[in-house]
Amino acid sequence: MITLASDFGSPYPAAMKGVLLSRADARLVDIAHDFPRQDVRQAAFWLREILPYFPPAVHLVVVDPGVGTARDVLVATAGDHVFVAPDNGVVVPVAERMDADPSYYVSSPDDPASATFHGRDVFAPLAADIHEHGLEAILEREDFRPAETVARVEFPAPEIRDRSVEATILVVDDFGNAVTNVPGEFIADAMGETVSVDGEQVPVRRTYAALDPGSRLVTVGSHGNVELAVNRGRGADAFGVSVDETVQMEKSG
Amino acid sequence: MITLASDFGSPYPAAMKGVLLSRADARLVDIAHDFPRQDVRQAAFWLREILPYFPPAVHLVVVDPGVGTARDVLVATAGDHVFVAPDNGVVVPVAERMDADPSYYVSSPDDPASATFHGRDVFAPLAADIHEHGLEAILEREDFRPAETVARVEFPAPEIRDRSVEATILVVDDFGNAVTNVPGEFIADAMGETVSVDGEQVPVRRTYAALDPGSRLVTVGSHGNVELAVNRGRGADAFGVSVDETVQMEKSG
Amino acid sequence: MITLASDFGSPYPAAMKGVLLSRADARLVDIAHDFPRQDVRQAAFWLREILPYFPPAVHLVVVDPGVGTARDVLVATAGDHVFVAPDNGVVVPVAERMDADPSYYVSSPDDPASATFHGRDVFAPLAADIHEHGLEAILEREDFRPAETVARVEFPAPEIRDRSVEATILVVDDFGNAVTNVPGEFIADAMGETVSVDGEQVPVRRTYAALDPGSRLVTVGSHGNVELAVNRGRGADAFGVSVDETVQMEKSG
Repeated sequence: MITLASDFGSPYPAAMKGVLLSRADARLVDIAHDFPRQDVRQAAFWLREILPYFPPAVHLVVVDPGVGTARDVLVATAGDHVFVAPDNGVVVPVAERMDADPSYYVSSPDDPASATFHGRDVFAPLAADIHEHGLEAILEREDFRPAETVARVEFPAPEIRDRSVEATILVVDDFGNAVTNVPGEFIADAMGETVSVDGEQVPVRRTYAALDPGSRLVTVGSHGNVELAVNRGRGADAFGVSVDETVQMEKSG
Repeated sequence: MITLASDFGSPYPAAMKGVLLSRADARLVDIAHDFPRQDVRQAAFWLREILPYFPPAVHLVVVDPGVGTARDVLVATAGDHVFVAPDNGVVVPVAERMDADPSYYVSSPDDPASATFHGRDVFAPLAADIHEHGLEAILEREDFRPAETVARVEFPAPEIRDRSVEATILVVDDFGNAVTNVPGEFIADAMGETVSVDGEQVPVRRTYAALDPGSRLVTVGSHGNVELAVNRGRGADAFGVSVDETVQMEKSG
Repeated sequence: MITLASDFGSPYPAAMKGVLLSRADARLVDIAHDFPRQDVRQAAFWLREILPYFPPAVHLVVVDPGVGTARDVLVATAGDHVFVAPDNGVVVPVAERMDADPSYYVSSPDDPASATFHGRDVFAPLAADIHEHGLEAILEREDFRPAETVARVEFPAPEIRDRSVEATILVVDDFGNAVTNVPGEFIADAMGETVSVDGEQVPVRRTYAALDPGSRLVTVGSHGNVELAVNRGRGADAFGVSVDETVQMEKSG
């Protein structure tokens, strides 16, 4: 099985699929191709939340704002999963969630500027060949070396002070829910009550449907983080927040 | 084979795919994940039009405005097809189109508010297990009971009075065609002529291409219903109609 | 393997998938279903760039502004690839790229206006049956004849005069890159320098990342054509160009 994730939109992912199917007899599964363009951190968040639900697979990830620069090609392993991606940190959070001690290998392109479509010409052939021939044969053939360091993306740590927190919006999902970096535990003791969000009291509930349609609420999303939401509406709009912005939350009592 | 349909957009459906592939050796086929959000009736319309073209499969459908409430989990069977969905009516029209007497089973969640992502945590595992272990084993294991009643969605009946009808727009498709609830037979005897739509005479034609690009027409869509359309344009815009709105159509003579 | 490409958006492609899977035991691969609506030339461009990366397959293509008219149904073969499409030229460029001398067969519908959804009712069954039963059996059964001529789409030839060219924008990709009809060789001797685009000097670079984010550049895309681009931005917007428009490019010296 090979999964595909990118910020390519359409139809470029199909060229990667052609390359994969020409070189490997693999089931292909699309994760998403509409990750916010060239935003490594948001893609890293979603991959960390989604890929752990998959059985062992080769995960091909191409969100690559550094294409055409000297950034390395990364192969990571976590348990029986293999990740193929640019060395920009996009697969590090998911690899580290799956395995306390993932292995990282890097290869430096001879001529980084030689292809504008590395997804098709570099990453897809590599993922296909790992699927067909096994990791060891490919690491050797392609002149990979164990990585001393890898590029990382940092999710900002929430600044929790007693009963208040400065929360950062990590992503806004397709429903409009604004997902923060605050662990759901923060609001566990406020469930059924309210918290202050930038000075306004907002109900804390376990489910969207606990309130009337259109009502704002603070809840815990399926990823375990605190979310700013609206029942049947778009939380990010109702709270007036965007990715990377911060809000102050404070529990009473 | 397991088909997937939802209003999740991207990338949440991928988490369901991971769960399915972890538990079942099944071919996955996406129906759509961009159904109008939390609109059970529009999703029910499309499923009724599309799923009958499929060979026997487990159909996983998650359009679930009642997530987090006490609504039941529904398993329906129609011939060799099995549907897994919330008990809100979304799969009832397609089940009844496929089989005059579908079977319905429901299960009540112990703690409906315990998971915000029932698609991933409740419905996908259930669909996978039915695919792998067969319906009977699962119905028993999961404490399902035959349903005495199931939730239903009602498509408004067209009010036909002799040569006129009050038509309701059921859906607007991606081409912009406004699909009404009026059976195509209504305009069979007006083909090649005109009908009045809210007082304006509009040509009735069998195909979009029968008129110049940009021309409005009334036709019968692939679903068999009367459609308000524009050749190479968006009928809903040209007629100024939206889902759930009504128009008056009248044949002359 | 059957690939699917259309301008249907969602969810109509799923009906084609149901038909294909009911008639054929084939792997299905989506190329794209969001080709610019009823724009045969843009679809033909993308198919020519993408399908050659695939292993032998039946390629089902439905971009069909002439649906409901007397246009023929086309089956084309290029090497071990088979194309099923309306006879409007959409698959001719890719067939001719794959094979210097493709074979073309056409069939005239008995009643072209009899179905509004030819993708589901005509093209998908044909593609499935070719996949299952082989081309020869189907060409005979369906009353196909070798085509004396086929409809063609013409990509405008760039007007190159010494060191200047009038370039036409063929497509704008999802990244916003404006892809011209000018072969990349035209700017090979200007790499690292600038060219004039409609009178303004713009850097010519091999990769987007060679300049600061937001910078306009002229480069060669993965398809080998000259592109108007912006590093991490939308070239078409920054250059103010749309599909079918022309720009004047001139190399200095």
